[in-house]
Amino acid sequence: MTSTHSVFADLTVSLGERSYPIIIGRHLLDNADFAHHIPGKRVAIVTNTIVAPLYLQRLTDMLEAAGKHCLAIVLADGEEEKNVDNLMRIFDALLENKCDRKTTLVALGGGVIGDMTGFAAATYMRGVPFVQIPTTLLAQVDSSVGGKTAINHPLGKNMIGAFYQPQSVLADTATLSTLPQRELSAGLAEVIKHGAIIDAAFFGWLEAHMEQLMARDDAALAHVIQRSCEIKADVVRQDERESGLRAILNFGHTFGHAIEAGMGYGEWLHGEAVGCGMVMAADLSHRLGYLPAQDKSRITALVKAAGLPVVAPDLGADRWLELMEVDKKNEGGEIKFILLKPLGQAIITGVPNDMLKATLAACIRQGS
Amino acid sequence: MTSTHSVFADLTVSLGERSYPIIIGRHLLDNADFAHHIPGKRVAIVTNTIVAPLYLQRLTDMLEAAGKHCLAIVLADGEEEKNVDNLMRIFDALLENKCDRKTTLVALGGGVIGDMTGFAAATYMRGVPFVQIPTTLLAQVDSSVGGKTAINHPLGKNMIGAFYQPQSVLADTATLSTLPQRELSAGLAEVIKHGAIIDAAFFGWLEAHMEQLMARDDAALAHVIQRSCEIKADVVRQDERESGLRAILNFGHTFGHAIEAGMGYGEWLHGEAVGCGMVMAADLSHRLGYLPAQDKSRITALVKAAGLPVVAPDLGADRWLELMEVDKKNEGGEIKFILLKPLGQAIITGVPNDMLKATLAACIRQGS
Repeated sequence: MTSTHSVFADLTVSLGERSYPIIIGRHLLDNADFAHHIPGKRVAIVTNTIVAPLYLQRLTDMLEAAGKHCLAIVLADGEEEKNVDNLMRIFDALLENKCDRKTTLVALGGGVIGDMTGFAAATYMRGVPFVQIPTTLLAQVDSSVGGKTAINHPLGKNMIGAFYQPQSVLADTATLSTLPQRELSAGLAEVIKHGAIIDAAFFGWLEAHMEQLMARDDAALAHVIQRSCEIKADVVRQDERESGLRAILNFGHTFGHAIEAGMGYGEWLHGEAVGCGMVMAADLSHRLGYLPAQDKSRITALVKAAGLPVVAPDLGADRWLELMEVDKKNEGGEIKFILLKPLGQAIITGVPNDMLKATLAACIRQGS
Repeated sequence: MTSTHSVFADLTVSLGERSYPIIIGRHLLDNADFAHHIPGKRVAIVTNTIVAPLYLQRLTDMLEAAGKHCLAIVLADGEEEKNVDNLMRIFDALLENKCDRKTTLVALGGGVIGDMTGFAAATYMRGVPFVQIPTTLLAQVDSSVGGKTAINHPLGKNMIGAFYQPQSVLADTATLSTLPQRELSAGLAEVIKHGAIIDAAFFGWLEAHMEQLMARDDAALAHVIQRSCEIKADVVRQDERESGLRAILNFGHTFGHAIEAGMGYGEWLHGEAVGCGMVMAADLSHRLGYLPAQDKSRITALVKAAGLPVVAPDLGADRWLELMEVDKKNEGGEIKFILLKPLGQAIITGVPNDMLKATLAACIRQGS
């Protein structure tokens, strides 16, 4: 069965021979018109126990109608599942089913499934084709674009991974109808980030439309997915392997990763940690004289309006510093921060230790 | 201390921006003249319990004299150690020691250490610099060149890996003086392979010099390392990611991998399995009319003269076929074999099932 669909946008991430399309629309994943974006005759769909009951059968039916053989690998849900044990479960299933080098791995789910499946595709038999079908706003606006794949290590998030580009990304906005509100907010964190670091006008648009976005207005959501993918694709095109510019996409993430690791993975959603991390990075930017107080307040207000936390957990100042030191942007001994100078532009810089401590003191929930 | 050294050859693997030098000589690893081939200020040396007592201190002293900070990661020795547990041990050590993205991973050891360290380098923080210092003949003539990295899975050898090129390869022939005879033979298997698939004249040279090689004549060994690296580098240059030509380097390996997996990893050395696998592939080539009986006999004789097994273990015919089916050269349902047509040239082809069974029947040790 082919349902009625509409395509909102069809972008290209331009990376020479590794270029690939991002298709944004409604009802893509059960529409045979899009099967050609998934190469090969054998397809292994990796998903989780939350997404599988919602979309696995529809995707499988569509692909089998297009003449493909499907294998489903269903993992437990959650950030804490993005680990080496689940990675090995994917390899076990692929090998037990004698999947060869031409088998396409499809990630059906959010960022955890996308990152883990991408890393499995990058490393199974030294690389097999890979397609992203992101079903969360976070994955649609961020993690499915750009080719970063990884799993977590107990000592740090995304510490084990690869740069590996998909063959295509199919972002089906119809899947957002089943998304919990908390995860919608988590996705909006990365959308706000794209405005803050690159596009002050888009940031302003978000301020004006946050209510519609929180109410899942379809046109508003389609717009932020498209604009986010455009911004991210443009940054990735300029710096695929994060040797420079691309690091600006980590705005809010140095603080955010520390929150996630310090609270235990899965306690805060990634987007929640990034939301709070952006408030902290804005505070630090303001302290260094890069960002007016008014814009710092606008960031805090927009993060809050998106339903995200703006007060950081009290991990203890020493633990905070320790957690940030392991972050992978920590190169050659100094922690690098992505700061705003001003809103709509990002810089990458080290900061004086007393400034960092002042930001921690100001942003942390006291006595909690 | 800088010891007297001599450089026999300085080759380049030409892969555009991923090009790298291979330096072949005596006493390279403790000579400060070569420290510049190991980039960065922090170096993590991965090695094993056999190699560490022999060379770790000398390499560390040399690098620290050159102003670098060294971390040593010493793993257990053996093919069965090329697994995800040891890979995670490398990541654990890197993270516990707060190694960043600019830390260089150095593989000091044989093919197992090289493959595993290379894969760790490919995936630690999505890629850090990597240098190979191969200490076995096998690694010097084969596994350290070409950028294939991997670990084994219980269901198949090298099933999890990446293509990842080193910054440089330092092949120190002085390390061969401590190599067990069985491992010297294992290295000669890949040398014979290079002659068989590409260079019949080199194959003839090996027939004439096998006695000197087995007696570790230094000039003879230096010649085979150089010629092997040249041949392999040239194939890799033409096909870095094994989309076609490069598969010819797997001559003897489809049978060999089945032997290794069937006997349990570590029972037969990789080179021993490849040696026997080449005899089997030559038998199959002859059955298909591609290789004269005389050249089949020359291959068997040379493999034997190198101290390698020429009779295959009896795994049971069904188990043999099952083990070969999982091999990663098995694409789209048909097992692909690398065969000689004639000696000095390789072809990649499927074969009739009865021919394969006849080769298995002819080459397997009966009643063992």
